[in-house]
Amino acid sequence: MIKATENSAMQPIANFILELDKLKGVTRKTRPLGLDRYENSAEHSWQLCLLAISLARYAETAIDLNRLIRMLLVHDIGEIDTGDTMVFIEEGLAARKAAELAAVTRIFGMLPDGGGAELLALWNEFESGETPEARFAHAVDRSMPVLLNLASEGQSWRENGISYERVVRRIEPEIKAGCPALWEYLKGRLEEARGRGYFGA
Amino acid sequence: MIKATENSAMQPIANFILELDKLKGVTRKTRPLGLDRYENSAEHSWQLCLLAISLARYAETAIDLNRLIRMLLVHDIGEIDTGDTMVFIEEGLAARKAAELAAVTRIFGMLPDGGGAELLALWNEFESGETPEARFAHAVDRSMPVLLNLASEGQSWRENGISYERVVRRIEPEIKAGCPALWEYLKGRLEEARGRGYFGA
Repeated sequence: MIKATENSAMQPIANFILELDKLKGVTRKTRPLGLDRYENSAEHSWQLCLLAISLARYAETAIDLNRLIRMLLVHDIGEIDTGDTMVFIEEGLAARKAAELAAVTRIFGMLPDGGGAELLALWNEFESGETPEARFAHAVDRSMPVLLNLASEGQSWRENGISYERVVRRIEPEIKAGCPALWEYLKGRLEEARGRGYFGA
Repeated sequence: MIKATENSAMQPIANFILELDKLKGVTRKTRPLGLDRYENSAEHSWQLCLLAISLARYAETAIDLNRLIRMLLVHDIGEIDTGDTMVFIEEGLAARKAAELAAVTRIFGMLPDGGGAELLALWNEFESGETPEARFAHAVDRSMPVLLNLASEGQSWRENGISYERVVRRIEPEIKAGCPALWEYLKGRLEEARGRGYFGA
């Protein structure tokens, strides 16, 4: 524990948390169910944590749920400078990732006493996607918009012209790798959704 | 670890996470900085987790940050049935709390294999406010709207006619008990804000 003297640490922490406030203004392509607006990356991050908690007991390899949750809390913070881009847009990916890294380096660097180092490490771990926790995090990140789309007759797929094939090609490897039981479930639901015309052309 | 057979656990988990989606539609009285809408309890919960992570190193007693984070993730879920009520409204508090307990009992009960029991325990721990983690959680929950108001010239205080005295009386005990260093900092900022006319009458 660090003794905070003369509020020295509190002002930079206040600046940091107000900088993070901007993630509430980063909009995604999915809408919260029944709401007439797009969801933002802050509320999305919250929901992913709850999905991870719900699913962790069914993971096939041991995962550290605490690290997984922290990873999900920070994984989208780079979007404060870059905005959100649909997972299906692969163009410009390298440049976008470099810009996100610059953003999180700047933002986590606002924390005093080196407090941002752990958060930066978590962000990098998510991006690398190599640990069981990072793979699980990617699986829930890919699955949540699918679950929302299945409940909204494919709102973001139809609005953005995303086909069944494109969805499956993009999400299957990551969901399967991170949480196979979830993929088994989603696979059948996606086929049903195809029959119902929930996808774009 | 539990082996999920024939997707038996996945459908109720999907139902649960879509039920939680409703928290994105529960609005509070504060606005995200620079945005023309009120913040919702889902994005607020996300932000509290980051504030807790940022502050935990300065806690005066040992706290379990992992449990604290999980507590913050679930602490507002009862509002799905009741809506958010400003902390200054004490009228009807007991009835509201009973309705929130009924809500979380219903919602966490949607999880299969008894998975909701831990979440219900965390929610109850927050409500009781007796452990160091629960006290810390209350401190960050009280502080976040203060930090937003200090940065928005007292937006929610002015809109709702909340005076300086009423703010201090309501938040000081909880912030002081949970995170004294944070209160030391906020105390001075609140006095400044009073001089600048950030409060309601």
